[in-house]
Amino acid sequence: MNAALAPPAPSFDEWMAAVQTRVEKALSRHLPSAEALPARLHQAMRYSCLNGGKRVRPLLAFATGEICAAPGEKLEIASCAVEMIHAYSLVHDDLPCMDNDVLRRGRPTCHVEYGEAGALLAGDALQTQAFLLLAGADLGVPSVQLEMLRCLAHASGSLGMAGGQAIDLDAAGHALELPELELMHALKTGALIRAAVTLGALCGESLDDDARQALDRFAKRAGLLFQVVDDILDCTASTVTLGKTAGKDSAADKATYVGLLGLERSREFAGQLREQALESLRPFGDRAGRLVELTDFIARRRF
Amino acid sequence: MNAALAPPAPSFDEWMAAVQTRVEKALSRHLPSAEALPARLHQAMRYSCLNGGKRVRPLLAFATGEICAAPGEKLEIASCAVEMIHAYSLVHDDLPCMDNDVLRRGRPTCHVEYGEAGALLAGDALQTQAFLLLAGADLGVPSVQLEMLRCLAHASGSLGMAGGQAIDLDAAGHALELPELELMHALKTGALIRAAVTLGALCGESLDDDARQALDRFAKRAGLLFQVVDDILDCTASTVTLGKTAGKDSAADKATYVGLLGLERSREFAGQLREQALESLRPFGDRAGRLVELTDFIARRRF
Repeated sequence: MNAALAPPAPSFDEWMAAVQTRVEKALSRHLPSAEALPARLHQAMRYSCLNGGKRVRPLLAFATGEICAAPGEKLEIASCAVEMIHAYSLVHDDLPCMDNDVLRRGRPTCHVEYGEAGALLAGDALQTQAFLLLAGADLGVPSVQLEMLRCLAHASGSLGMAGGQAIDLDAAGHALELPELELMHALKTGALIRAAVTLGALCGESLDDDARQALDRFAKRAGLLFQVVDDILDCTASTVTLGKTAGKDSAADKATYVGLLGLERSREFAGQLREQALESLRPFGDRAGRLVELTDFIARRRF
Repeated sequence: MNAALAPPAPSFDEWMAAVQTRVEKALSRHLPSAEALPARLHQAMRYSCLNGGKRVRPLLAFATGEICAAPGEKLEIASCAVEMIHAYSLVHDDLPCMDNDVLRRGRPTCHVEYGEAGALLAGDALQTQAFLLLAGADLGVPSVQLEMLRCLAHASGSLGMAGGQAIDLDAAGHALELPELELMHALKTGALIRAAVTLGALCGESLDDDARQALDRFAKRAGLLFQVVDDILDCTASTVTLGKTAGKDSAADKATYVGLLGLERSREFAGQLREQALESLRPFGDRAGRLVELTDFIARRRF
């Protein structure tokens, strides 16, 4: 097509809304229907996954996919699998024996709506659904698909997200030092964010080792940036704006960046992480355009 | 080798003990070490998986493997993955919001030993570990490995084990009729038992459709047999013999075969299921020897 005749590229906001809508629809298709038996379990799974969330991990996967010409259908599958893992972790994290939270994305949490046992099972089944989806879809080369499954499982398990939650749990009430706090976050939220980027890359044309490593450096910094901004918002934003209980982490005596560094130095740290993340994207030039915009979005978000 | 010089085949008891020991060692290797951080999480995972259990699902996988000349190394991986799923389901099933049980395999349950949040995370991470192991091992043909992952995920999720637990949960206090009870068990325990047989078959030389279907018919009947015997034992055996709280299901007003059919007719039903299971194995002749012995073991077990 003649470039002069090409429609203008969508703005970042348009692109973001399109990805969010696409992922929402795909999640709805890839979750069991609310009528299928056992209906109440399926309703609880859908309640926890649909209608909400910024879809940061899918946005990262889709933005990374632009670097390697990844087809949207594959990015949809990878995004839904990551988002199901994320949703399961929130359901279990909100349970009374964990954070005991009653509000999530502006709605009652899953156990408030479906009971503790119902939420436990919904979280369990959402985790399984993520692996069922990723193993069941036709993603082309089976060996690459196995690599994607390993990536997601590693990021979710005891050396990834679940491990980070365990460190968080053991640390409640204690004072964490900065290196421990970074390890905790690198696992608890960072691992799945890195997986979203890696999976996005695995959906497309194969990248060389330098490119893979640059993307992984980016993902580590973006993941930490996301968490530092989260801590800042927990102490500065309102419950209504956040859609979840604000001020909870500091009230629960949990280690946060704001608690350790203070608000001003936390903001400086976020600025440094943003710079470093953008630096990692430089080798990709224009192809990293959406990732650059997404990094700025994460750095500046207010909810 | 001259058949006359071949050592005698091990007895069923010897074979069973050898498989149990082999799987115990393999599980220990394939679980994160108790020293690796986060250590307490890894200890809880190991506590829930090691030192106990009849390993019925691994025995089924190994016995099925004899039909299709499956290598022991592959059967080990498949067995460990199934057993990790089984162990995770027991940990979550024992939680206070579910069955609230304090005794399992003669020891305190995971949440008694590691706290509710610790047990929640250990179960979560055990599920992930099962998929990580099955995706991470070198099992030969990637497309067959993906089929194994789909089989395990399908058996574990909302249309399998977790779905059966949800039906069980919704049914507590109500009177279940026989068809509903069979559906509940077909999902809750039957699905993973079928998966153990299917995975055992997928570890070996590929079988034709007739053979696959015969094995699946066998697995359905063996799974139901296992459950009916479980219900009989729950009402006739002691807590010490079982290593878990006896008489609990009837006390909790849960639907059981004994409750619906009475003890004598439950025993007759078990006898019929045993016959039907053995019938499904007839096409395999001598190669199904271990499966035949295992069926009798399941029918006659006292613990």
